[in-house]
Amino acid sequence: MAAAQSAALDCNLYSDPTLTSVRERIARLNGVESENVIVTNGSDEALSFAFMAYCDKETGAAFPDISYGFYPVFGKLYGLDCKKIALKDDFSINASDYFGLGRTIFIANPNAPTGLTLTLSEIEDILKNNPDNIVVIDEAYVDFGAESAVPLTKKYGNLLVVGTFSKSRSLAGARVGFGIASKEIIKDLDKLRNSTNPYNVNSMSLAAAAAALDDNEYYVSNCKKIETSRKVMSDGLKALGFELTDSKANFVFAKHPKIDGKELYLKLREEGVLVRHFDADRISEYNRITVGSESEVSALLSACEKILKGTN
Amino acid sequence: MAAAQSAALDCNLYSDPTLTSVRERIARLNGVESENVIVTNGSDEALSFAFMAYCDKETGAAFPDISYGFYPVFGKLYGLDCKKIALKDDFSINASDYFGLGRTIFIANPNAPTGLTLTLSEIEDILKNNPDNIVVIDEAYVDFGAESAVPLTKKYGNLLVVGTFSKSRSLAGARVGFGIASKEIIKDLDKLRNSTNPYNVNSMSLAAAAAALDDNEYYVSNCKKIETSRKVMSDGLKALGFELTDSKANFVFAKHPKIDGKELYLKLREEGVLVRHFDADRISEYNRITVGSESEVSALLSACEKILKGTN
Repeated sequence: MAAAQSAALDCNLYSDPTLTSVRERIARLNGVESENVIVTNGSDEALSFAFMAYCDKETGAAFPDISYGFYPVFGKLYGLDCKKIALKDDFSINASDYFGLGRTIFIANPNAPTGLTLTLSEIEDILKNNPDNIVVIDEAYVDFGAESAVPLTKKYGNLLVVGTFSKSRSLAGARVGFGIASKEIIKDLDKLRNSTNPYNVNSMSLAAAAAALDDNEYYVSNCKKIETSRKVMSDGLKALGFELTDSKANFVFAKHPKIDGKELYLKLREEGVLVRHFDADRISEYNRITVGSESEVSALLSACEKILKGTN
Repeated sequence: MAAAQSAALDCNLYSDPTLTSVRERIARLNGVESENVIVTNGSDEALSFAFMAYCDKETGAAFPDISYGFYPVFGKLYGLDCKKIALKDDFSINASDYFGLGRTIFIANPNAPTGLTLTLSEIEDILKNNPDNIVVIDEAYVDFGAESAVPLTKKYGNLLVVGTFSKSRSLAGARVGFGIASKEIIKDLDKLRNSTNPYNVNSMSLAAAAAALDDNEYYVSNCKKIETSRKVMSDGLKALGFELTDSKANFVFAKHPKIDGKELYLKLREEGVLVRHFDADRISEYNRITVGSESEVSALLSACEKILKGTN
């Protein structure tokens, strides 16, 4: 906050179009060079550049049928042929379904809204089996217990890892995202950045992001707190009869045999608890519940208990 | 600054994707509805949306041969056929050259780097003579003495006016731009915003922009100061033998019969004065010189005098 506030004093001057301060810090923390990093106006901009750079009429996109809702939006925007690949019945991703598709692949790991992860060896299999196509691993939620694929960018020139400061770095309002990949991929994305909006990240957000990276301890301890709360919340929900996926994200994905997903969502709203319900095939029984503070978790569990009692 | 600093405290929460606070204020100041306004991550994003929305393989773009250097970049990025229309010998725009082109038209008013303006009646002629095409008037520099075309958006559904907070609002580092047009045009651009980056402007910049609009007096008096300095600088340069265009922007465009444009640029740099030289056809004799503070203007004039004495 202090860094952003200090940068606010110089907003009469243009922001740094080279994004060096943040690129260097991301590089250092991830053991790569700053030429392997691009910084974007939220991770959506990094994803948008990836769709622009690596998809066209010939090369379509592929992504899970249940995943980040923005992938099909980009697909439609850029007029692409998109192949939606069904998750398995347990909502996990079958890596081999993504082998040799001849498409640019987008996979959120952990996936949303399921919270389920791929192992690095599964991701490596996908990379090996798509040597001529780019594989984008969207790690928006990776810091809450999953393993980052960034180390694989050194071995695989076809891997782009996308990240965000909106979740684990607590800077959703600052709009900062990034991509880590081979220098060639970053050069492609940077060409798009320079051809659409060279001053894509403002000075205050750059300062906030740099300071957040300098204060890495805070972020690590925060993520641990959220993991602990996720365990408390998951255990509490299970004790109430909920079934949960094994989420490694900052949310859980839960259904209850006695109450419909939408009904629970609406009743929780009446109790002042907002969760996310998706009116979509296969997942309409579920709700995505963000891991909140201790008191928010208690409020959720109490509300669920009350609603379920009323249902019996 | 204070508004941005206060917003920095809440950056853990997402920014407002409806951009309402800024849209409403821009609307009020311009006598339009907030549905006539879009707010963007710098005006480059608004221009990018305009190219995406209104140009394609069938409908190319048209803009002056000498203008904002980014128009041809967008044209190349989106694979468009671009018609560059030559300015007249005095660098002014001949409105009738833009009649019935069957293309989306982009005109900076004042134009850069010449600082020359079109009258509203000339712009109206261009709008009338392109009833089936969108005309984008890029008003990045309008507040330093030119007339805004915003009132024409009420009469012409094919007009998009683009503006920025980077010049007259002194917020270049915050990255805020906007577009004003018919509700239909804004709906188109907003669809692109929502399909690429719905949280396109961060909370701190939104707060800064809203506060800047609330403090309109400051901005008006600042623009007047710059107009006064432009007069002082122009008179000083003319007294030294420079020839200037009649710039209505926050820069002048000047050449001297006794020294080449590039040579002057390099010698000024040696003196610690940075001006902008364009290594381009027709304008290589000129330099674009930003209107600085009083002391910066003095420094420029002294440096020019010294350099010209050395040239004799």
